[in-house]
Amino acid sequence: MKVVCLGSGNVATHLASAFKASGADLIQVYSKTLANAHALASVLNSQAIDNLQLLNREADLYLISVSDDAIAGLVGQLNWLKGLVVHTSGATSLSVFEDQGISHYGVLYPLQTFSKSRPVDFQTIPLCLEAGTSEDLQTLHLAAATLSTLVYNVSSADRKLLHLAAVFACNFSNHLYHLSADLLARNHLSFDLLKPLILETAAKVQSAKPYDVQTGPAIRGDEATMNRHLELLQEEPVLTDIYKTLSKSIKKTYL
Amino acid sequence: MKVVCLGSGNVATHLASAFKASGADLIQVYSKTLANAHALASVLNSQAIDNLQLLNREADLYLISVSDDAIAGLVGQLNWLKGLVVHTSGATSLSVFEDQGISHYGVLYPLQTFSKSRPVDFQTIPLCLEAGTSEDLQTLHLAAATLSTLVYNVSSADRKLLHLAAVFACNFSNHLYHLSADLLARNHLSFDLLKPLILETAAKVQSAKPYDVQTGPAIRGDEATMNRHLELLQEEPVLTDIYKTLSKSIKKTYL
Repeated sequence: MKVVCLGSGNVATHLASAFKASGADLIQVYSKTLANAHALASVLNSQAIDNLQLLNREADLYLISVSDDAIAGLVGQLNWLKGLVVHTSGATSLSVFEDQGISHYGVLYPLQTFSKSRPVDFQTIPLCLEAGTSEDLQTLHLAAATLSTLVYNVSSADRKLLHLAAVFACNFSNHLYHLSADLLARNHLSFDLLKPLILETAAKVQSAKPYDVQTGPAIRGDEATMNRHLELLQEEPVLTDIYKTLSKSIKKTYL
Repeated sequence: MKVVCLGSGNVATHLASAFKASGADLIQVYSKTLANAHALASVLNSQAIDNLQLLNREADLYLISVSDDAIAGLVGQLNWLKGLVVHTSGATSLSVFEDQGISHYGVLYPLQTFSKSRPVDFQTIPLCLEAGTSEDLQTLHLAAATLSTLVYNVSSADRKLLHLAAVFACNFSNHLYHLSADLLARNHLSFDLLKPLILETAAKVQSAKPYDVQTGPAIRGDEATMNRHLELLQEEPVLTDIYKTLSKSIKKTYL
């Protein structure tokens, strides 16, 4: 399988590398910044380009992994391609491809958080697929199955909900980790002390429902402890706001 | 070492079981509800009591693992004990023991989230210790080191901060997991799809700083995606409030 990668960010890097590792031929990397295209292309042993007219016409799969607001502009310039063109965005509808004259198109959304420096095991990453026709979906399925054992058909509407749920479960949780690390650092305490707790909290919900394993003062209705916490936070308006908002939601959940 | 456990909840169960597994003799379990004392005592092969006057006077260590607001009342009735009396609360100061006539006292706070049905590896749980005298601290250190390799001396003030940070990192994260699971369930989508993401998010910060691995629309300043998310949440005032509060904090953090 010949693959062209459009984009050079975190998702592009991990996805293109995973295709390469699964045996695909990564023939080109496009970025509007040639240096960025080069950085990824050198790892993948492929050609770096910054001009869409140089795109290889023989590829089977074109992966668009650019920022959400750049997808539509790129799609509008790809109507001459014959291979399958997919974007990898959770928040962008399949309809971005409609009426753009692209023959074969779809979505391959890997539901994971990527950092360039950290390797990930693609086999355990859910891949959410959608395509313009059932034939294109089947082609995409075959390609995705070379990367992961967790391949799902997900509509644009459902994918947007998944993306939103992922913001709560991942982006917001990571920010809470940061806020707690920062609170500890400002008091000369090590974040290392919290790491086993963070890992166990995430490990627990792999088998239990989060609803069933909630702990802490809010679910116990322990107002004395919550008031002491708010006292500790009296110079911290942002943390106070978050503490109150989430505690209120916990109390409401278990009313 | 002879240990008496006062309390029969999650922390009591895990801590007493860990002492038992490390070779200690769990001679008694006290609970004001005898059936609860029996339930734990039967696992530990120890005596169940619901009357403090029946407490064995020969124990080396008395573990008070009851709800925070019950600690002071219990401590007031234990002034005749000669062994080391410790509570296990993150949010309760060492001073709860002062002027109560107890000879030897301290705190053993395991920084972890416990559910009765889920086994935990105590060796990797940070144990935060404090005691009334350096001799008692040394005794407590020897006892704690039989359970975990991560034993720290932590003052009451620092322990309260750790407990507060743990609420952000653990209790609030778990609630976010629940909110996302609930959002998916109401839309007939499986929470399984988010599980690898949740685990990876927690695994990432075992080696990276949470500040450095933040992802999502808020850190990108991607207002278009955030507005689409808020549209999806327009019938969900609680989720909208949390989404706005946490996104605002992320944007402020990376200004």
